[in-house]
Amino acid sequence: MTDLSLLPVQEIMARDPAHAPLDREPDWAAGAAYIIDRFVPIGEARVPITDLGFLRADAVYDVVSVGRGQFFRLSDHQKRFARSCTRMKLSNPFSQAEEAALLNELVARTGFKDAYVWWAVTRGANLPRPDDRLHSDRFLNRFYAFVTPYVFIKDDASRQRGIHLHVSENYVRIPPNAVDPRAKNFCSLDLNMSLMEAGEAGAGWSVMTDGAGVLTEAPGSNIFVVRGNRVLTPESGCLEGITRLTARELCSEIGLEVVAGTVTVDDLMSADEAFLTSSAGGILPVSTVDGQPICQGAGPNSTRVHNTYWERRWAGWHATPVDYGASR
Amino acid sequence: MTDLSLLPVQEIMARDPAHAPLDREPDWAAGAAYIIDRFVPIGEARVPITDLGFLRADAVYDVVSVGRGQFFRLSDHQKRFARSCTRMKLSNPFSQAEEAALLNELVARTGFKDAYVWWAVTRGANLPRPDDRLHSDRFLNRFYAFVTPYVFIKDDASRQRGIHLHVSENYVRIPPNAVDPRAKNFCSLDLNMSLMEAGEAGAGWSVMTDGAGVLTEAPGSNIFVVRGNRVLTPESGCLEGITRLTARELCSEIGLEVVAGTVTVDDLMSADEAFLTSSAGGILPVSTVDGQPICQGAGPNSTRVHNTYWERRWAGWHATPVDYGASR
Repeated sequence: MTDLSLLPVQEIMARDPAHAPLDREPDWAAGAAYIIDRFVPIGEARVPITDLGFLRADAVYDVVSVGRGQFFRLSDHQKRFARSCTRMKLSNPFSQAEEAALLNELVARTGFKDAYVWWAVTRGANLPRPDDRLHSDRFLNRFYAFVTPYVFIKDDASRQRGIHLHVSENYVRIPPNAVDPRAKNFCSLDLNMSLMEAGEAGAGWSVMTDGAGVLTEAPGSNIFVVRGNRVLTPESGCLEGITRLTARELCSEIGLEVVAGTVTVDDLMSADEAFLTSSAGGILPVSTVDGQPICQGAGPNSTRVHNTYWERRWAGWHATPVDYGASR
Repeated sequence: MTDLSLLPVQEIMARDPAHAPLDREPDWAAGAAYIIDRFVPIGEARVPITDLGFLRADAVYDVVSVGRGQFFRLSDHQKRFARSCTRMKLSNPFSQAEEAALLNELVARTGFKDAYVWWAVTRGANLPRPDDRLHSDRFLNRFYAFVTPYVFIKDDASRQRGIHLHVSENYVRIPPNAVDPRAKNFCSLDLNMSLMEAGEAGAGWSVMTDGAGVLTEAPGSNIFVVRGNRVLTPESGCLEGITRLTARELCSEIGLEVVAGTVTVDDLMSADEAFLTSSAGGILPVSTVDGQPICQGAGPNSTRVHNTYWERRWAGWHATPVDYGASR
């Protein structure tokens, strides 16, 4: 295998005019939101305090990224979001076509070429009669969305070095029989606490187990473990990540055998390489786990998947171009 | 044991002028809120969409009730809230004295004599650099609160009949090693889904297990099982409910032996009586579990605890009178 170096993605993006945002009014150039029934600049975007999405994390959401003016795998994200709604008995007030038009409009208003596009359906307002909480059809579910500039979980230098990963000891991931992580939802206090535990341990990100030594997922990310010619990723207890799906496809393409199954902490500690996948950052190589070296910097397979991911995205793979002239 | 009948609490409250709200402007008479740094009528109370309390359920909260113009066990609620903050590495911008003054001011603005007083500290705004998520001290935590009219989970007639309880089969309670339920928090999608499961089963409320036949808690409530002279309540995997604490004290007073420990579904099914406890409704007797009769209507011990609870509260037990003339 030839020695590859990790593409300095942010450096490339900063130089390339294809990533420069279009001119917009300052209010919209900071970000845009859709609140229940109207578009507002992000600075004015607020949720009624009695919305059950806030009071009880009763909501599902999704996030799609835009790169170089193109949504990546938009329909895959929309299909996953529809499954999340069904799993949590939430009813999306918009059709998938309306939803796509609305997300496009949000990006168009900001002029962003690289963006983080978040949307959710919440249970809606709390109902005056507690008995109504027993019936999903008595709620008026609400739609919220916002667009902010794209942010990388880690910068070029951190990706090149590979991050220090901490396996959470104090928190396990909420199990699927409590809240199904395949329905992307707000209940992530466990994930957030594990991040602060990682910070205290001097690490750069966390990963969570099921409490019995089996890996589940990392905050906002799925995990992959490379061992020889095989790549392992947890099959259950985790989000059905779209970047996870993409990484699986790319691994197969470069001749690695991909296995979704049980992946233990021991598998991770004895791996040749490991990486995290997320919409907010793509492929994130791991160099140490709990202070133990896994590999020197970003491993060769991680690097290849990382570089291929960005080259394909910029070339328009699975892309839906943003219509910047659109207006509803 | 003499045959007691359950006090018609709502009927009594409706007749008694001590429960009539004071006159206020219509905007405030619907409810009041405190949003980060200011008081607003409830209809204008909104949370920035990028607050992590919304996006990631990264928050703790508490609820204290006001009855007949008096907070009930306010300092117990405040102490629990302080413990919740500590457990989740959240920093309350207000001291306990400031918090108490603020909650009082909210009730005073509405003129409510019977109210539900909710407050929370959230992680605050999402931070621009994802690396900052690893350090709790880099967040600016935010305070939110609101007051709405008091609502009973179930009405007089339902409490007199006793409710039909459903033991959730499809969902288990989020375990303490994922998100500690002693820190009252927003992650309650499991509880909400179990309520809808109960609704589909024709029941009136749900209760959740740990997945191994051990009871944990019910949505917004703790559970008690009466068996002869003994009263059992789950010791762990549940909120340290203030009404649970109160019910334990009242049970002891009326000569029942209270045991906090492991309580199984079998214990519940073979109980003489059972009841739920919550700030939103006090003592809620159970008459059937999964369609099996536990007792006929509200059982005698449940009735005694229920009635004593309200008689004591109205007599000013553990009360902090609202200062309706207060203004900051």
